[in-house]
Amino acid sequence: MQGETVNRFIDLLMPVAAKQTPPVPSLAPLLELTAPAMVAVNQVILERLQSEVGLIPELAGHLIAAGGKRMRPMLTLAGALCTGQAEPQEPPQAALLLAAAVEFIHNATLLHDDVIDASGQRRGRETANAIWGNQASVLVGDFLFARAFELMVESGDIEVLGLLASASARITEAEVRQMVMTGQPDADITDYMTVISGKTAVLFAAAAEAGARVAGASRDQAAALYEYGLHLGRAFQMMDDALDYTAPTDQMGKNTGDDFAEGKITLPVILAWQKARREEQAFLSRAFAGEESRDGDFAEMQALLSRHDSIEQALQLAAAEADQAIAALDKLPASELVAALASAAAFAAARQS
Amino acid sequence: MQGETVNRFIDLLMPVAAKQTPPVPSLAPLLELTAPAMVAVNQVILERLQSEVGLIPELAGHLIAAGGKRMRPMLTLAGALCTGQAEPQEPPQAALLLAAAVEFIHNATLLHDDVIDASGQRRGRETANAIWGNQASVLVGDFLFARAFELMVESGDIEVLGLLASASARITEAEVRQMVMTGQPDADITDYMTVISGKTAVLFAAAAEAGARVAGASRDQAAALYEYGLHLGRAFQMMDDALDYTAPTDQMGKNTGDDFAEGKITLPVILAWQKARREEQAFLSRAFAGEESRDGDFAEMQALLSRHDSIEQALQLAAAEADQAIAALDKLPASELVAALASAAAFAAARQS
Repeated sequence: MQGETVNRFIDLLMPVAAKQTPPVPSLAPLLELTAPAMVAVNQVILERLQSEVGLIPELAGHLIAAGGKRMRPMLTLAGALCTGQAEPQEPPQAALLLAAAVEFIHNATLLHDDVIDASGQRRGRETANAIWGNQASVLVGDFLFARAFELMVESGDIEVLGLLASASARITEAEVRQMVMTGQPDADITDYMTVISGKTAVLFAAAAEAGARVAGASRDQAAALYEYGLHLGRAFQMMDDALDYTAPTDQMGKNTGDDFAEGKITLPVILAWQKARREEQAFLSRAFAGEESRDGDFAEMQALLSRHDSIEQALQLAAAEADQAIAALDKLPASELVAALASAAAFAAARQS
Repeated sequence: MQGETVNRFIDLLMPVAAKQTPPVPSLAPLLELTAPAMVAVNQVILERLQSEVGLIPELAGHLIAAGGKRMRPMLTLAGALCTGQAEPQEPPQAALLLAAAVEFIHNATLLHDDVIDASGQRRGRETANAIWGNQASVLVGDFLFARAFELMVESGDIEVLGLLASASARITEAEVRQMVMTGQPDADITDYMTVISGKTAVLFAAAAEAGARVAGASRDQAAALYEYGLHLGRAFQMMDDALDYTAPTDQMGKNTGDDFAEGKITLPVILAWQKARREEQAFLSRAFAGEESRDGDFAEMQALLSRHDSIEQALQLAAAEADQAIAALDKLPASELVAALASAAAFAAARQS
């Protein structure tokens, strides 16, 4: 309580103008502030990938070593470091274990997603299923998932375990829901929000809250980090879905047009459908049903999105989520790390790839 | 401690002859004694299958409702009921949750196995992947796994959670190991034991111990139940593997010859290889590599097994495991339920289907 009073006092001292300056969109400050702890997390990840069965670290290592942004463990570390209870740059051991656990959960879903989507490329490399086959990818995904729970058990906090177990169930529910929506461009935007909240945002949220909890944050602070993660995750996924129609094939190895080719119903599609004339809706129905695809379909889709400003509208919705993420940070004591979290949220809705 | 002293006293009073009478091989007494509690477990299973996403209970319900022996939840219930701490027929709520959890874990692995093996039949019905496709089966398997962990969290015992998380990791490790062994009839019997311990026996063991733990069993009793489950699980799997070469296509919908067709290296194969002459080994190598299968291969395999008494030898090894399971029960207070567990172990090594 005393700490909180001091923090409120610091808040009052800060010039209002400084607080209102929009954060510079960048992931760099967050990456930098969590870098020392991330070294320790990577160590845990490497250790816990080990198994007597050599194929497991080989296959999982192929995916995990390829990198990715490590957003989820970064959020766990940030959650543990930004609540004013832990020494900066020294999160408790439990936070390191949980950071590794959320990365394992994420990578387990990636392995299964790539099997489901029959993807050949991820993070600029061949997918595990392309190299070792679907069977191995399904099983190693299961292994990572089980190992994540072992790490959570070791972290010793059963409430946090419940938070992450429930996030895991919601991820898979959302993926089934997304599968059921495939090919239906007339889907409701509420369903889309439910899908992206479940498949992406809930794990961002739980990752951030888990870090805060094991670092001794107050309930309010933990809830604020959950809120931050939830909106950040939504903004990230909305941008991801927009970039699939606009970005050149990026360094992460995801190909522009993948969602379209798979008939995946994402935000730009739903927004376009809502404004589309009858013949445009007919095009959308045919193109997303995936039954008779034609040359030039993707170009026609891009033209349609452009006519109705659907990408722009999607970006605005992503920006609104980022704003909500930033607003959630108000409940945390001001610090360099909290400012970095704000920058990361601004980045989520502004990135080009 | 007082309870244990009394139990030891009862043990001493029991005529030695009665203790040495071999148990009648049957699953019926165990089924009967756990039936009232199983009604409550089935209720939990039904409730926790529910999801806003209708396909999840539909697909998972298709598999779970088809039945199976419910061995794992039965072991959890037996574990909770046989340690003399709980009223018979009234296991604690935590044991019901854990019983549902182990059934979920088991069914998650079945869903994934059927995808991996591209199976069309299970428990006498079409498999989920045959009806709803591989994608849905992978995702609903993940859902069941996550939901299992939610149930374990609710049961409230973090040590038990660790036990089951670690069992889950070992299941998937064993399945990868089994996959790697495919097509190699010269595999070592130690590798086979590691595979069946991991993929079957460890969950039997953890299921039984988990029930005992949440019912307040002593460490010794919990360890005895783990030991019992481990040997029981091995005996079950060894029999399963032998029956795949001998049984007529059974009511459980598993087809004789499936393992052979998939090139799966099981106990009879390894035992046959050890005694096979050079030309027989050549046959085994060709048949299990699965590259050029010929009409009559399965009949030739059965003849080979018969020549070397490999099935008989496998049954003897299964019987030895069953004996070890029964011996582990010595550390538990004698009761109708413990006698039923002994019968179940004898059944495991004597069943015909």
